[in-house]
Amino acid sequence: MRASNLALVLRAIAEAGPITRAQLATATGLTKSSISGQVTDLVAAGLVEETDAPPSRDRGRPGTMLSLHRQGAAGLGLEVNVDYLAALVVDLGGTVRYRHVVTRDNRGRPAAEVLAELVRLAEAAVAAAAEQDLVLAGACLAVPGATDGSTIVRAPNLDWAAVPVELPLPATAYGLSIENEANLAALGELWFGTATPRDFVHVSGEIGIGAGIVVGGELFRGAHARAGELGHVILDPDGPSCSCGGRGCLERLAGLDAILLAAGVASRVELEQRCEAGDLRALDAVAEAGRLVGVALASVTNLLDPDAVVLGGVFAALAPWLQPAVAESLAAHAAKPELLVSSLGPDAAVRGAAGAVVQRVIDDPATYVGSRD
Amino acid sequence: MRASNLALVLRAIAEAGPITRAQLATATGLTKSSISGQVTDLVAAGLVEETDAPPSRDRGRPGTMLSLHRQGAAGLGLEVNVDYLAALVVDLGGTVRYRHVVTRDNRGRPAAEVLAELVRLAEAAVAAAAEQDLVLAGACLAVPGATDGSTIVRAPNLDWAAVPVELPLPATAYGLSIENEANLAALGELWFGTATPRDFVHVSGEIGIGAGIVVGGELFRGAHARAGELGHVILDPDGPSCSCGGRGCLERLAGLDAILLAAGVASRVELEQRCEAGDLRALDAVAEAGRLVGVALASVTNLLDPDAVVLGGVFAALAPWLQPAVAESLAAHAAKPELLVSSLGPDAAVRGAAGAVVQRVIDDPATYVGSRD
Repeated sequence: MRASNLALVLRAIAEAGPITRAQLATATGLTKSSISGQVTDLVAAGLVEETDAPPSRDRGRPGTMLSLHRQGAAGLGLEVNVDYLAALVVDLGGTVRYRHVVTRDNRGRPAAEVLAELVRLAEAAVAAAAEQDLVLAGACLAVPGATDGSTIVRAPNLDWAAVPVELPLPATAYGLSIENEANLAALGELWFGTATPRDFVHVSGEIGIGAGIVVGGELFRGAHARAGELGHVILDPDGPSCSCGGRGCLERLAGLDAILLAAGVASRVELEQRCEAGDLRALDAVAEAGRLVGVALASVTNLLDPDAVVLGGVFAALAPWLQPAVAESLAAHAAKPELLVSSLGPDAAVRGAAGAVVQRVIDDPATYVGSRD
Repeated sequence: MRASNLALVLRAIAEAGPITRAQLATATGLTKSSISGQVTDLVAAGLVEETDAPPSRDRGRPGTMLSLHRQGAAGLGLEVNVDYLAALVVDLGGTVRYRHVVTRDNRGRPAAEVLAELVRLAEAAVAAAAEQDLVLAGACLAVPGATDGSTIVRAPNLDWAAVPVELPLPATAYGLSIENEANLAALGELWFGTATPRDFVHVSGEIGIGAGIVVGGELFRGAHARAGELGHVILDPDGPSCSCGGRGCLERLAGLDAILLAAGVASRVELEQRCEAGDLRALDAVAEAGRLVGVALASVTNLLDPDAVVLGGVFAALAPWLQPAVAESLAAHAAKPELLVSSLGPDAAVRGAAGAVVQRVIDDPATYVGSRD
C-alpha cells in the first residue's frame, strides 16, 4: 500500500508538477499527512525537489512547489545492433545527458567480444553520468532479436543464439534488463517522439526490419513476447530464403543489406551521399524498398488498424527518398494510416532503453528509494 | 455500486455455481446480507434459480444452492452474410435453443429487401423463444463489414454502404447491437468452441475473409474498430484489383469465389461434394487457397504472435482438404502457431452474436433486472 501510494504521489508530481502539497492531496485522494510522509521520502531519495512558487499578486507569501528532480536519478540505455553499438543516458526529465554510438559491423564476431566492447561503452557512460552527479537507477539493453530477460534467445541477423548476458556494471536499484530493440524503439518514440499518437506501429528499419506495436499507449507483445516481426511479413512466397527459415520476407527484400546491394554501395553513409547527389541507382533502390515496405504496412494496417505508422531507424534517415514510395504504395493498396517519420531515427531504441529505466523509477519508486537508504 | 455488486454476484454464480450463499460471500467479499439482497433480485428476475444441494453423508439437511437459471434470459443472434441469412437463440447456459440458416445470394439485392427477409427470420426466432418460455434480453446482428453500432458503414462484398439498421423487433433490455461478423465469430469460438486458447486469430473464410483477433480473452479492435481485415493482407502487390481499392488481397485470391472459379463449380455444396469425390480440379483449387491462407497466416503469426490460428467459416467445412495445405505453407515460412479448425464452422458468427447478448446479461445484470420490474 505504502509502495503504491509512493508511486501515486510521484506520478502526480511527474504529470502535474510543479504542484503544491495541497494540490497533490486533491489529485491523489491521499491525506495531507500521508502526502507529507511520501514527499519527505521522495525528496530524501533525490527524486523530487522543492522550489519556491513564483511571486503572485493574488497570494501571500510564496508556497513550496514540488517537481521531479531532473538532476537526480537517470537511466542507462545500451544497444547491440548488427552494425553499431550505443550507450545513452537520460535523466528523470527525459533529457539526453550522454550519447555515444560506434558504427561497427558485428556480424561474424563472437558474442563475448562484442559484449566486451559494449561494456567499455557502458563504463564510459557510467563515468559520464557520475561526473554530472546523476545516480543511475538501472540499465536496459536493446538487442535485435528475442530475449527472455537475461539471455539473447536468438538474434538471426547477428547469427547469435542462447547468449547469456551478464555485464559487469555497478550495482543499481533495478539492475540490467534486456528487451527487443524494435519494442524499445517504439517506446522511445512514444515517450520522446514528437506528436506520436497512442496507437501506432513503429518500424525499425536496419539490416533486419522490426516493428514495435503500441496499442493505447502500451506495447503489444503477443502471447510469447514475439509480436512485431514486421521483417517476416511475406511479400513473395516463392522469393529468396530468409534467416528465419522462411522465404520472401520483407527484410530480405527491403532491409538495409538488400538496399545496399541494389544500390551498389557498401555502407549506409555512402547510400545517403549517393541519394543526396541524385544517383539514380541509389534512388531506385531506396524507392523499391519503400514500395515493398508500403505493401507490408498496408497489410499491417488492415490487420491492426493503427492511427499511424512511423518510419524509424535507417528508414528515418532515408525518409526524403523512401517516404514518398511508402506513401504511394499505401495509397495503391487503399490503406490510409498517418505516415510519420521518427524524429529519433537510429537513436530510438537506445533512448527507449534508457527511458524504460526512467519509466520504472516513476512506476516503482519504492525500490529506488529503498536502494538509497 | 449496487449494479456492480449485482454483476459480481451473478458472475460468481455463473463461474462457480451451484454455490451456497455462504460460499458466495467468501468468493465475492460481500456481506451475507448484501448477498441475500442481490440473490433475491436475481432470482426474481429469473437469472438465478435455487436448488436443493444433493444429499450427502457428511452433511445434515441439504442446503440451498444457487445456479444460473438456464431457462430464463436468452440472446438472439442474427446474421446477414454474402450468401446466407441466419437467426439463432442461445440461453443463459450457452445452449442453442433455436437455429435457422437460409442459403441465399444477397449480392445485388437491395439492402431493404435483405433486411426485410432477416426480420422474418428474426420474428420466427422470437416466436420460438417465447414458445420455450425464454425471455430475450437483446439481439445482436453480425454483418460482413464495418459498423458504427447502428449503421452498416460499408460491406464491400455486399456492395452496401451507409445502410441504417432499424429492425422492428420486440422491446428488450439491451435492444439491438451490430458488430462485424469476423469479430463475433472469434468471440463465438472463444465462448463456445472446444479447447480454444486465450490468444488466437480466428479466420472467417467466406466470400470475404475476415479475422477476429483475441488477445488475453478480449477482442482486439484497433484504433478505429477496423482491425482484423485478414482478407486484405496483400499476397501479390501486382495482383488483381480488389473491392477494397487495393490489389492482390488474400480474399481476392483465396476467398470462396476464387476457389469456386478455380474449381469450376457453382456453389459451396457442390465444391464439398467434388472434394469428397476426389475431383482433382476441386482439390487443387482448395489446396492452392490453403497455401495462400497459410502464407497470410505466417505473416499474421510473425506480427501478432498468437497461440493458435483457427480456421472457421467455409474454411472449417473444407478443412479436410484445406488444412494440410495451410499447415505446409505455415511450415515453409517457419511459422509455428497451433493450427485449429473451428468446431462451430459457419455458425460461429451468429452464435457469437447470440452469445454477446448473454455475455451482456452477465456483465450488466442491473439493466436486465430493471427491465423486468
